[in-house]
Amino acid sequence: MDAPEQSFLREKSLAVEDQELAVGTLEDSHAAKPETDAAIQLPNKSKPDKSAVEKDREDFREAVVKTLDRLLFVHKSFDIYRGVAGLYDFGPHGRTVELNVLSLWRKCFVDEEDMMEVACTALTPEAVFNASGHVKNFTDLMVKDEVDGAFHRADHLVKSYCENRKKDPTISAENAAELDKVIAHVEDLSAEELGGVWNHCSSHEESTFSSSSPLQLDVSNFLWSKCYLRPETAQGSFCNFKDYYNLNGRKLPFAVAQVGRVFRNEISPRQGLLRTREFTLAEIEHFVHPEHKSHSKFSDVAKLEFLMFPREEQEKPGQFAKRLCLGEAVAKVSVFVIIFAYLLFDKKKKLILISTTENVLGHVNSETLGYFIGRVYLFLIRLGIDKERLRFRHHLANEMAHYATDCWDAEIECSYGWIECVGIADRSDYDLRAHSEKSGHALVAQEKLAEPIEVEKLAITPEMKELGPAFKGNQKNVVEALEVD
Amino acid sequence: MDAPEQSFLREKSLAVEDQELAVGTLEDSHAAKPETDAAIQLPNKSKPDKSAVEKDREDFREAVVKTLDRLLFVHKSFDIYRGVAGLYDFGPHGRTVELNVLSLWRKCFVDEEDMMEVACTALTPEAVFNASGHVKNFTDLMVKDEVDGAFHRADHLVKSYCENRKKDPTISAENAAELDKVIAHVEDLSAEELGGVWNHCSSHEESTFSSSSPLQLDVSNFLWSKCYLRPETAQGSFCNFKDYYNLNGRKLPFAVAQVGRVFRNEISPRQGLLRTREFTLAEIEHFVHPEHKSHSKFSDVAKLEFLMFPREEQEKPGQFAKRLCLGEAVAKVSVFVIIFAYLLFDKKKKLILISTTENVLGHVNSETLGYFIGRVYLFLIRLGIDKERLRFRHHLANEMAHYATDCWDAEIECSYGWIECVGIADRSDYDLRAHSEKSGHALVAQEKLAEPIEVEKLAITPEMKELGPAFKGNQKNVVEALEVD
Repeated sequence: MDAPEQSFLREKSLAVEDQELAVGTLEDSHAAKPETDAAIQLPNKSKPDKSAVEKDREDFREAVVKTLDRLLFVHKSFDIYRGVAGLYDFGPHGRTVELNVLSLWRKCFVDEEDMMEVACTALTPEAVFNASGHVKNFTDLMVKDEVDGAFHRADHLVKSYCENRKKDPTISAENAAELDKVIAHVEDLSAEELGGVWNHCSSHEESTFSSSSPLQLDVSNFLWSKCYLRPETAQGSFCNFKDYYNLNGRKLPFAVAQVGRVFRNEISPRQGLLRTREFTLAEIEHFVHPEHKSHSKFSDVAKLEFLMFPREEQEKPGQFAKRLCLGEAVAKVSVFVIIFAYLLFDKKKKLILISTTENVLGHVNSETLGYFIGRVYLFLIRLGIDKERLRFRHHLANEMAHYATDCWDAEIECSYGWIECVGIADRSDYDLRAHSEKSGHALVAQEKLAEPIEVEKLAITPEMKELGPAFKGNQKNVVEALEVD
Repeated sequence: MDAPEQSFLREKSLAVEDQELAVGTLEDSHAAKPETDAAIQLPNKSKPDKSAVEKDREDFREAVVKTLDRLLFVHKSFDIYRGVAGLYDFGPHGRTVELNVLSLWRKCFVDEEDMMEVACTALTPEAVFNASGHVKNFTDLMVKDEVDGAFHRADHLVKSYCENRKKDPTISAENAAELDKVIAHVEDLSAEELGGVWNHCSSHEESTFSSSSPLQLDVSNFLWSKCYLRPETAQGSFCNFKDYYNLNGRKLPFAVAQVGRVFRNEISPRQGLLRTREFTLAEIEHFVHPEHKSHSKFSDVAKLEFLMFPREEQEKPGQFAKRLCLGEAVAKVSVFVIIFAYLLFDKKKKLILISTTENVLGHVNSETLGYFIGRVYLFLIRLGIDKERLRFRHHLANEMAHYATDCWDAEIECSYGWIECVGIADRSDYDLRAHSEKSGHALVAQEKLAEPIEVEKLAITPEMKELGPAFKGNQKNVVEALEVD
């Protein structure tokens, strides 16, 4: 990038940011709607031509990627054999950066928050992912290109088909609205529904794609037992919950941290390190009592101010992330959701902080979420992330994984736009309940009540000497039926 | 174990050790053969009843394993689903121990020896292990038990069959000798030969085993490309050799270190952590000029004295490891082998130091091996290993992996006996040559000579005007044939 271009972009970018701040301030001060709307329009006028910005970003990124490759920070794995898409190695400098990031993560979370760090295996028996719902829910529908043999995700193809169709100037307003609806809801569709939509789309145009078929994620067939390679480290922590709980003196809350390699069967890896088939994930499961989600150290972070992007703001057109005080945001946010913590950092050296509860009863106390959002913010700032390029965005309802009842992402603005690098999810009791049911081991915590609770219970005591003559041979069945609660 | 039993065992054990030292001293002083032989016999007399010692070891081990399990140092993975044989998790204490061991390893090797630490992927395309010989050579012949569905390695079954047969009192001396021969050479057999031997063995007795069939190691089928899970981290370092060499300013020697999870498709995992299907491996590849294997820091370790067990000592009956001075041992050992460095520490948190050379020319300078044996000794002692229970044993010729031209193991005596925990192998140019041939990329180092070497070369210069009339239409083929070296 030339210096004049850079300064032009920087200027425009600052103008946009100033305008965003102005909008935020107006909204915070409850300005009249027309005034706010006018301010929202302004940034669009001062924005430089989108395609020029994008081209510039791409050139800049290409230069950075080439340098990182040349200096072996990160480079394609097994390049002498032309590599495999989505696999990257860290050279000496890259590995050093990774070790430093992990060391800071360990200090900020494991040490300072007194967590248990454990290490489970990547190989995971099939039963675990059947119970967790990964096998059923992460079965991406894929489509094979019969010409070049490449695989593509059906939802991506449907989206791109709809976006291309919309560019047709002859299309009716009604059809355009329908296409918008498909784009907005494609992620809500089941595999079967998606297959139907794709068949409909592909019948409209010349296509080299074969019909769609489901793809199992992360499967690794070992002779001795069907195993998967884990796509997250969390399931090991969930399966061992009872052991960790006992080791913690049967007290809640406590947190279990893991760092390790995870594997994802990406159909078409892209965007460099953002979608890879193998990467290091740093995860935390924070287990809390479902009725006691306040956090004793929340006041340490309550006064932090940074960019947040709540769900209801995203649903209005032309809105931006706003600088909010965490303490106030938590009070505000908690009115409409129960939120918990699940953090990721970067697809390659991903840091995750997950909070799960044994049972979610609908309480709206989200100090625990707020606390971990604050800790993640402090961690990322200490890592050197520019606070103007960091925001916490609330997931929309149709974005969340099957196990999440709520999710916030820490997003960093880079040459690919705003990219999720830490995820904060409330998994509620989804995983513990699923494994309890499928394994037959109750993964629950126990609580000693200050006062015993007395409950009156109606019970049936069969009078055998009456039942005998009345039911004869069926007496036993009758007694059994009566004993069922 | 009761206190009196313990003290009895300790006494006997000390007596054995004293006797071993006495034998060593006699041998060192070149005592007459009968005197040495008599000393060798003595330890056998003072040894306590073998089965009592073994029972005691087993009880002790069981108690330790139970404690480690209860305190979550290490425990079966996915136990709520009854687990998978050969998969273990580290709980908080175990993970802390692992991190401390890796941290000391990083300090002793990566930092103090100025190595490059890198991180390659565990997923590895098939072409890599075809080239490295793993697919062909680590294809264990296995046998399925038709009754319980369990798999067993054919070589283990053959050994156990022969050992059982030998217990038959009616067996002839000739047959017993034959069985001994089979036991000694079962590891030399090809899969086909082994299959023949097993069929012969199994035809002699009632057996529920089906016939043997080969088992591929570590295979994981991904839709997009056939990949294996690495059984060692080394292949990534070999494939990237040229990049690391360039980054090092095209200078030899240099070393590449890696720590990461590796996977082995053990047919029947056993002995707790000693044979697992997934574990962390710490490996070092030390690349040296094949003609300059001296080591500039060898004098730092030359005066160390510890137990060594050379190959020729193992081949004589009744021999033991002897305390040798490393500097003298290297001089002695180098008379008959070229030795290089490949270190492992414990099957679970295995540390490996591998040295490879671009080309082995048969020189006998093994200072580099000696240096790394010394460094490994110092590392293990700093880790807290009892030096009386640590020895360096030379591999016998039929023990070595297909890629090794020589191998020494650091062995630690534990409740399972003397167990390999660090391996030191000379892989010569095996891997670099194999990948050069299969990939078409020359993985070689270049050397600038002080003086140019002048070579006289006979060359053919075709005289076109003579060839034309003589060969007419075939002129072109003749010229091409002449130009081939």
